[in-house]
Amino acid sequence: MLQQTPRSTPRVKSDRVEFSREAAFAILDEALICHVGFVGDGTPVVIPTIQWRIGDHLFFHGSHGSRMAQVMAAGQDICVTVTLIDGLVLARSAFHHSMNYRSVVLFGQARDVTDDAEKILAFDALMDKIAPGRRAHVRPPNEKERCATKLLALAIDEGAVKMRRGPPIDAADDLSWPVWAGVLPLALTPGKPIDDDLVLPGVIAGKPAEREP
Amino acid sequence: MLQQTPRSTPRVKSDRVEFSREAAFAILDEALICHVGFVGDGTPVVIPTIQWRIGDHLFFHGSHGSRMAQVMAAGQDICVTVTLIDGLVLARSAFHHSMNYRSVVLFGQARDVTDDAEKILAFDALMDKIAPGRRAHVRPPNEKERCATKLLALAIDEGAVKMRRGPPIDAADDLSWPVWAGVLPLALTPGKPIDDDLVLPGVIAGKPAEREP
Repeated sequence: MLQQTPRSTPRVKSDRVEFSREAAFAILDEALICHVGFVGDGTPVVIPTIQWRIGDHLFFHGSHGSRMAQVMAAGQDICVTVTLIDGLVLARSAFHHSMNYRSVVLFGQARDVTDDAEKILAFDALMDKIAPGRRAHVRPPNEKERCATKLLALAIDEGAVKMRRGPPIDAADDLSWPVWAGVLPLALTPGKPIDDDLVLPGVIAGKPAEREP
Repeated sequence: MLQQTPRSTPRVKSDRVEFSREAAFAILDEALICHVGFVGDGTPVVIPTIQWRIGDHLFFHGSHGSRMAQVMAAGQDICVTVTLIDGLVLARSAFHHSMNYRSVVLFGQARDVTDDAEKILAFDALMDKIAPGRRAHVRPPNEKERCATKLLALAIDEGAVKMRRGPPIDAADDLSWPVWAGVLPLALTPGKPIDDDLVLPGVIAGKPAEREP
């Protein structure tokens, strides 16, 4: 279970909240990005970035010069939030319109990953997330590239999962209102791959993970 | 133009940054949710919520009892970030993999909207965003429902737009690597509407915005 603390416990709609680690993992694995919140120069800052997971650690990266990287290095508390949009909930009353979603909110201090072996594993895991199978075919990162990338890890420990699922919940009085009601599902969906102009002849077009044998 | 301040100016990849108000508006209008960052009890907190726009103000709402609403009422600085994922950028080298995205980061203090006439306009705009045309057919919010909803407005003033577009940018040395490269477009896409079990006979199935005349 995730660690339930005052800051990780939402104060409203607690029927939508759970602390299951497995539920958090599933959301983190399905989502591409997180929004990292930190305090920089006294002001809250929220930055979107790719996130991925190995075991019970969430990873994200940035440039060494970024404000986010500088704050992380100082060992400050951060909040990392990951949200999947699942659909629009269209009720009979304007008031009961809602959104189906799954979200994870995590708190903690990020660890600066500097060990090269750990970096290799982490960047491999990132490639495996964004394009499974592709890692075998691309030019692997070299040490200079790994050094140039600031890698941060956050323990998936203190936090909460919040989600809404299912149909609209209208008041009994509104059920006779003559309007369609239901859910319009939404999902982040891949389109047709767009070839780079410089793809070599003989390389299979539009195949993100493969190349000709 | 958006107000460019030290906190609204990204320190890295500044070629991806612009301060156009129109670019910000377009992203806010296309995206459904924002991630609101604030400092609560000394810790950064990032909460996802639906956002919408009227003119140069961004609106979002919550419950009166939420931590977010309490912090807003105290006139603290917040950061609101909106991100659209446009695609995976698949390069020839692992290092140059990236994501195409458009994001807006805004700073300021939210205003508690309490005037009922302004609330009516704002909730109408929200309905018009999530399901254009539907507002004419649903039961409008009553005063009690408007009172129960905490409505917040943030001036779209201080902030920045950051985006990445286009193909992968590989190093010249990697262009001969025999692997497909390009962009896998991603977009939040609606699926087939799911009827609520209680939809009345005679109401057009799967029509979020319409009903039988």
